[in-house]
Amino acid sequence: MSILLKLKRASKKAGLPPGTLVHIGERKAEMVKIGLVNYNKDAFQEKEVRNIEESLDFIDASTVTWINIDGLHDTGLIEKIGSNLGIHSLVLEDVLHTTQRPKIENYEDYILIVLRMLYYASDVHEIKSEQISIILGSHYVISFQELEGDVFEPLRERIRHNKGKIRKSGADYLAYGLLDSIIDNYFVLLEKIGIQIGELEEELSTEPQKQTVEKIHSLKQEIIFLRKSVWPLREVIAECERTESDLIKEDLSFYLRDLYDHTIQVIDVVETYHDLLSGMLDLYLSRMSNKMNEVMKVLTIFASIFIPLTFIAGIYGMNFKYMPELEWKWSYPVFWVVIIVAALVMLAFFKKRKWL
Amino acid sequence: MSILLKLKRASKKAGLPPGTLVHIGERKAEMVKIGLVNYNKDAFQEKEVRNIEESLDFIDASTVTWINIDGLHDTGLIEKIGSNLGIHSLVLEDVLHTTQRPKIENYEDYILIVLRMLYYASDVHEIKSEQISIILGSHYVISFQELEGDVFEPLRERIRHNKGKIRKSGADYLAYGLLDSIIDNYFVLLEKIGIQIGELEEELSTEPQKQTVEKIHSLKQEIIFLRKSVWPLREVIAECERTESDLIKEDLSFYLRDLYDHTIQVIDVVETYHDLLSGMLDLYLSRMSNKMNEVMKVLTIFASIFIPLTFIAGIYGMNFKYMPELEWKWSYPVFWVVIIVAALVMLAFFKKRKWL
Amino acid sequence: MSILLKLKRASKKAGLPPGTLVHIGERKAEMVKIGLVNYNKDAFQEKEVRNIEESLDFIDASTVTWINIDGLHDTGLIEKIGSNLGIHSLVLEDVLHTTQRPKIENYEDYILIVLRMLYYASDVHEIKSEQISIILGSHYVISFQELEGDVFEPLRERIRHNKGKIRKSGADYLAYGLLDSIIDNYFVLLEKIGIQIGELEEELSTEPQKQTVEKIHSLKQEIIFLRKSVWPLREVIAECERTESDLIKEDLSFYLRDLYDHTIQVIDVVETYHDLLSGMLDLYLSRMSNKMNEVMKVLTIFASIFIPLTFIAGIYGMNFKYMPELEWKWSYPVFWVVIIVAALVMLAFFKKRKWL
Amino acid sequence: MSILLKLKRASKKAGLPPGTLVHIGERKAEMVKIGLVNYNKDAFQEKEVRNIEESLDFIDASTVTWINIDGLHDTGLIEKIGSNLGIHSLVLEDVLHTTQRPKIENYEDYILIVLRMLYYASDVHEIKSEQISIILGSHYVISFQELEGDVFEPLRERIRHNKGKIRKSGADYLAYGLLDSIIDNYFVLLEKIGIQIGELEEELSTEPQKQTVEKIHSLKQEIIFLRKSVWPLREVIAECERTESDLIKEDLSFYLRDLYDHTIQVIDVVETYHDLLSGMLDLYLSRMSNKMNEVMKVLTIFASIFIPLTFIAGIYGMNFKYMPELEWKWSYPVFWVVIIVAALVMLAFFKKRKWL
Amino acid sequence: MSILLKLKRASKKAGLPPGTLVHIGERKAEMVKIGLVNYNKDAFQEKEVRNIEESLDFIDASTVTWINIDGLHDTGLIEKIGSNLGIHSLVLEDVLHTTQRPKIENYEDYILIVLRMLYYASDVHEIKSEQISIILGSHYVISFQELEGDVFEPLRERIRHNKGKIRKSGADYLAYGLLDSIIDNYFVLLEKIGIQIGELEEELSTEPQKQTVEKIHSLKQEIIFLRKSVWPLREVIAECERTESDLIKEDLSFYLRDLYDHTIQVIDVVETYHDLLSGMLDLYLSRMSNKMNEVMKVLTIFASIFIPLTFIAGIYGMNFKYMPELEWKWSYPVFWVVIIVAALVMLAFFKKRKWL
Repeated sequence: MSILLKLKRASKKAGLPPGTLVHIGERKAEMVKIGLVNYNKDAFQEKEVRNIEESLDFIDASTVTWINIDGLHDTGLIEKIGSNLGIHSLVLEDVLHTTQRPKIENYEDYILIVLRMLYYASDVHEIKSEQISIILGSHYVISFQELEGDVFEPLRERIRHNKGKIRKSGADYLAYGLLDSIIDNYFVLLEKIGIQIGELEEELSTEPQKQTVEKIHSLKQEIIFLRKSVWPLREVIAECERTESDLIKEDLSFYLRDLYDHTIQVIDVVETYHDLLSGMLDLYLSRMSNKMNEVMKVLTIFASIFIPLTFIAGIYGMNFKYMPELEWKWSYPVFWVVIIVAALVMLAFFKKRKWL
Repeated sequence: MSILLKLKRASKKAGLPPGTLVHIGERKAEMVKIGLVNYNKDAFQEKEVRNIEESLDFIDASTVTWINIDGLHDTGLIEKIGSNLGIHSLVLEDVLHTTQRPKIENYEDYILIVLRMLYYASDVHEIKSEQISIILGSHYVISFQELEGDVFEPLRERIRHNKGKIRKSGADYLAYGLLDSIIDNYFVLLEKIGIQIGELEEELSTEPQKQTVEKIHSLKQEIIFLRKSVWPLREVIAECERTESDLIKEDLSFYLRDLYDHTIQVIDVVETYHDLLSGMLDLYLSRMSNKMNEVMKVLTIFASIFIPLTFIAGIYGMNFKYMPELEWKWSYPVFWVVIIVAALVMLAFFKKRKWL
Repeated sequence: MSILLKLKRASKKAGLPPGTLVHIGERKAEMVKIGLVNYNKDAFQEKEVRNIEESLDFIDASTVTWINIDGLHDTGLIEKIGSNLGIHSLVLEDVLHTTQRPKIENYEDYILIVLRMLYYASDVHEIKSEQISIILGSHYVISFQELEGDVFEPLRERIRHNKGKIRKSGADYLAYGLLDSIIDNYFVLLEKIGIQIGELEEELSTEPQKQTVEKIHSLKQEIIFLRKSVWPLREVIAECERTESDLIKEDLSFYLRDLYDHTIQVIDVVETYHDLLSGMLDLYLSRMSNKMNEVMKVLTIFASIFIPLTFIAGIYGMNFKYMPELEWKWSYPVFWVVIIVAALVMLAFFKKRKWL
Repeated sequence: MSILLKLKRASKKAGLPPGTLVHIGERKAEMVKIGLVNYNKDAFQEKEVRNIEESLDFIDASTVTWINIDGLHDTGLIEKIGSNLGIHSLVLEDVLHTTQRPKIENYEDYILIVLRMLYYASDVHEIKSEQISIILGSHYVISFQELEGDVFEPLRERIRHNKGKIRKSGADYLAYGLLDSIIDNYFVLLEKIGIQIGELEEELSTEPQKQTVEKIHSLKQEIIFLRKSVWPLREVIAECERTESDLIKEDLSFYLRDLYDHTIQVIDVVETYHDLLSGMLDLYLSRMSNKMNEVMKVLTIFASIFIPLTFIAGIYGMNFKYMPELEWKWSYPVFWVVIIVAALVMLAFFKKRKWL
Repeated sequence: MSILLKLKRASKKAGLPPGTLVHIGERKAEMVKIGLVNYNKDAFQEKEVRNIEESLDFIDASTVTWINIDGLHDTGLIEKIGSNLGIHSLVLEDVLHTTQRPKIENYEDYILIVLRMLYYASDVHEIKSEQISIILGSHYVISFQELEGDVFEPLRERIRHNKGKIRKSGADYLAYGLLDSIIDNYFVLLEKIGIQIGELEEELSTEPQKQTVEKIHSLKQEIIFLRKSVWPLREVIAECERTESDLIKEDLSFYLRDLYDHTIQVIDVVETYHDLLSGMLDLYLSRMSNKMNEVMKVLTIFASIFIPLTFIAGIYGMNFKYMPELEWKWSYPVFWVVIIVAALVMLAFFKKRKWL
């Protein structure tokens, strides 16, 4: 994993006055795309618009307007939204700085929610992430993504085909729907990681390879980053529930509570993964130590038996002129007896120590 | 343990509108079974019913009705209960998603309690678990289980034979009875794990085998999962005690306090187990290191004594024409003296270092 | 230590209605013994009574009555106390289940305090424990012990000889006296463990033996159990202080604060012991690793010097017909020069690496 | 890193009455420099003044006056500021003791904020720090630095060229601007450390050298010091937000909230770095253990195969007169067969154990 | 360090009625010494008195009286103070039990503060400590020390020469002065430990010796004890600040806040030391493991190269009658070629594995 990249937070901003709009982060999307969905109980309209003013015209009290923006490098566009809807420049700054911590900020006329959308790239065992900022106004929701492609397709389907409560509800329900989609998608991510952990465990207990432990380590490092994204979520959703803003209606609290439960569950699973991976590393270490012990035992047994024997053989290989044993008739058979007895004694010694 | 399975949370739900009823989890039971128990101070009726409407008819103010459902895959049935008793679809969703965290949710007309029932499969050293959801209404309790077979038999006996306070009390006491049965059963589980730990300790201190440490590790991983189930319990029961719902009468608070104590005790024991297992792994590691040390000492002593001696013998095995020592009469005895002295010096050296 | 035993919580109770009196725990005492102490400012009476009714008759407003019961297996006796003094069956259940967590429960007419009395069996390096339950009523104190023999003798002496405030004070002061005796005794226990730790430290730094580390480990496991007993104490005593029961008079708060301080001190010392033992284990491990290093260095030095030399000697032990060196006159002295130089080079190499 | 230096807190002060002005810390700057910036919406003046009285004259209700002092060893100067603006001697003491923990203190007429400015010296892999104290009064801000050179240049630019809101705002906005500059600079520091971590990770996974782990360790020690500086920041900024001082106007709360978010982000990143570095050390250790295992396997395989073979060769190198094998014609070929078979058996043995 | 001694808390007290005055701790001082300082704005008197009554006579509303007692074994004396000034026997007990946890207790007429005075004995690398109890009354301060010699000399100087606010202030300021002196002295201690840590780090990174790690360990154990003394300080000083006693005047709050900051700083430094020492131990372990690896590599390289070569030499040292190679003319040169090639192959193998 390129920690380098993950941790990067361009220092280009340092020194500029607060509220200056600069896009901080990698430029991930080629072109800014503006998607518009406008609906109420009876009507529905969906289109891709060229310029932002066109879409802002749709915002009025009779419909819910959802503007989705893919790509953040066009700061002019963001500024136009800000001036049209009366959004504070610090809020726009937060939208543009894509290394934000998840948070919710409650202003009088709108609420800003910043989250991360997470994907698991199985091939490189890496969690990829993208910041998504949601501005909820009285009749509109604006969502900002760094990249095209999102997890909202099923939600759009529900709007298109008027499934569930969504067409009958307001902008707050739509915002909830976005949050719900994102957090539901966390479970998809967690399941993939779970499978990964399961496979690693399998690998570890059958035939661990050199890379097994490396993979466990790198997955654990990923989990450290994941934690950073999910822990603040708890606070964010709890704050949503608690907030007394007029923008969030009473009857949504039910759904928000449900969302809160899901968030806690996500955190729980992430913590459990962390503990499991730590446990697997410990197991690996104790196995390594076990194996080492066995290797050393084999060496010690071989060396301890044969080195003394070789010495004895060495003695009678000496060329001293006066070595009486060399002349004796039974020397050689006696030598063998001595050798075999010595070896057996050693084996018994090792047996007693339970090394065999 | 198949972590894979434990962590699975089907992503089939992701994208559906909130409140859509889909059973998430393994399909554990073959057939949905509906058990009905209906009683008051004077009367008692118990039967297995075919369809859910039949059992719902029993619910009225004069009796306490307990409907127990084994198997969750018949979402139609669940939906019928919901529409008959006015239960919110998000609540039913929680019942069907069998990977919930234990929780309590207090609605106006009913209370939802979600818990896990735990079993210990001694043969595979695995903790098995099943979600149980309890809906407490003013005159009824509905319990949903994933599988047939539960820990409520003694409770049913008490109802049948009118033992204790149960027949004289309301639906809240019945719900308390269910919780109490489940938590009492945790002690059975903990005792079994305790025995397991005791055996492992015994094994570790007498003749640890290769698998011993693996078993300790896998038990510790199980404890990590167990923790996840028991920690939220504390909150759940405390919430039960605190709640100001009309559904829970004053005089139950006594019993709930007792239940709370038991819960704390369960958590205490789980934490103690965790610490004990960690301690055992540490002990194992320090023993391994000890053993390694001994193995190496044996090797070093043998090698350090005999390798130099073999070298000396090697010298006089050389075939140089002009080697004066070879011709001397006392060479061979002198050789032995040198050898023995060298060996003794080495032994003294090792003795001094306390290696012997 | 037999963890098995320590963790046992008989599952006989699981399934019985709450409030059923069953003695859970080992049957430690042979016979139930009932000790009665009855006193006021002017009078004093102490005797061992046969049946419980006799002792209950002593309870009246003019005296403080202390009934001490050793042995809990006679559930009939306990039940009689309960019915006579109007004590709830769940409270009696708590008294009988001797694996309780320390706790205090404040009922209107009486207060239940559950604690553990701890002993240190130096011979087996084990902490033994016994549950003690104290019921404080308006004019009486009943204490339940699992075993004969306690730490209250000095307290009885003070009552007998009218020392200190005790004869002038009420039942609440007596209950405080019992708590104070128990917690004072913890210091005796801690001092014994402290001596043990000191000895182990001494042993570790002078001549650690194989068992040293085992003893440290087993002491650490004991401390884990000890923690479980002392942490809840803090809450219990703080609750005593906070409680607004009429049973505890204002002027006791002074003493309870003192008791609270002692409790905090006990916890402090237990935590310090835990950290010290962990530190000792770490030290042991780093020493082991140090020793291993030394052992390996000795081996490596011997082997690295003599194995090449033996090879050289081996060469000239070969029987090739045409080996010119064998015939040369100065071969043997040159051989020695080469050997000595090689050995010196190796020694210099090891010296440079600081292995010598 | 010279921990010695970092931890030094001169004990010269111990024993002096509280409020005595002594500069504690290294004397970092040669000469005290006084920088003055005085501005309002319409006017702007910037100069370096010789003596402090001159600059204090500028303070009045119509302008915002910022006095920046580089170098703290001239206690007389500090005292003059104190007496002129009515600042308590304990506050001045805090300014002079440059080993303060970050803190905010709210007095009636002024607010003291103490922070650390951090730099990363890439060459020595060390974080350097300097204390900066800010006194915010109703129409002035005084900042005290230990050294010349700071991170405020862009802020000065904004004042000079009337960019953003600063010239239109009061002293509180200026103080906020200083805090914002300092914390923005933390991200620059963190990015540098992040690059360092990325490089170390790269190094670790490709060709770890002896120094790699040393560098990781020393970076981790640095992070421990860093934590000490950033954790209290959270409290400081939160306190700023909460404070009800008249000195901080309502409309700043917006900006302070933003600052708070940044602070949390800084802490988050520091914690993540700490965890990452710990993970890297663990990985290193498990790799070392892996390598050791391999080294030992190679040794064991070589030794276990050749030592027995050498022994066999040694036997037939003996010079016994009566050794029948020596005379046999096929002895030599048979010897080779035996040798090869023995070697193959050993290889098969190691193969089976998966050591090859 | 003699943990034994540090942890000792004589059990002599166990069993005595609460409030019995027994001196618990070592008898450190030979003779009890009573020092008297009596002053107000205008007058000042300092003397050493023989008996306590004499000094108590000085206490009146017009002066501040400071009685300092060195040595606690004269319980009669302590009792006299108690009865004269109306101090509760439990308070006196706390003064005499010199193993107290730091604490503050607020009675109506006086406040008890218990702290530890710490010294660092550099020669034995040990932190020595002494309990100091301070009783603050309306016009007097009584301080009890275990030993002669303290850190209050500068404070006495300030009183003698009327420096600072002390002579103009009341008994509360004097008590604050004592606390301030003690905590200022902690920094002296911490600096000494810091130097020690710095030296150990130096030692560790240049030429670690066997004792280095032992010293680090023992310093870490000392820090564990130190923590026990400093953590409760925080609470004590915070309580001082919060307390609403009439004994502490409003205008002291300023100074107490300052003291609180110092306390937090002390805790911070202690925690940092703890983390640094842990880091150093980790570094030591990874270095040990590194060294071990190197030692093993050297052994393996030597053994793997020379053992096979020795075997080959051994073959041609055999005395078989029919060994054709022995007769060949080029055998010996060929032998050398084979030997050298084999050695080179091995070296290449090790080179490839990066062992060289």
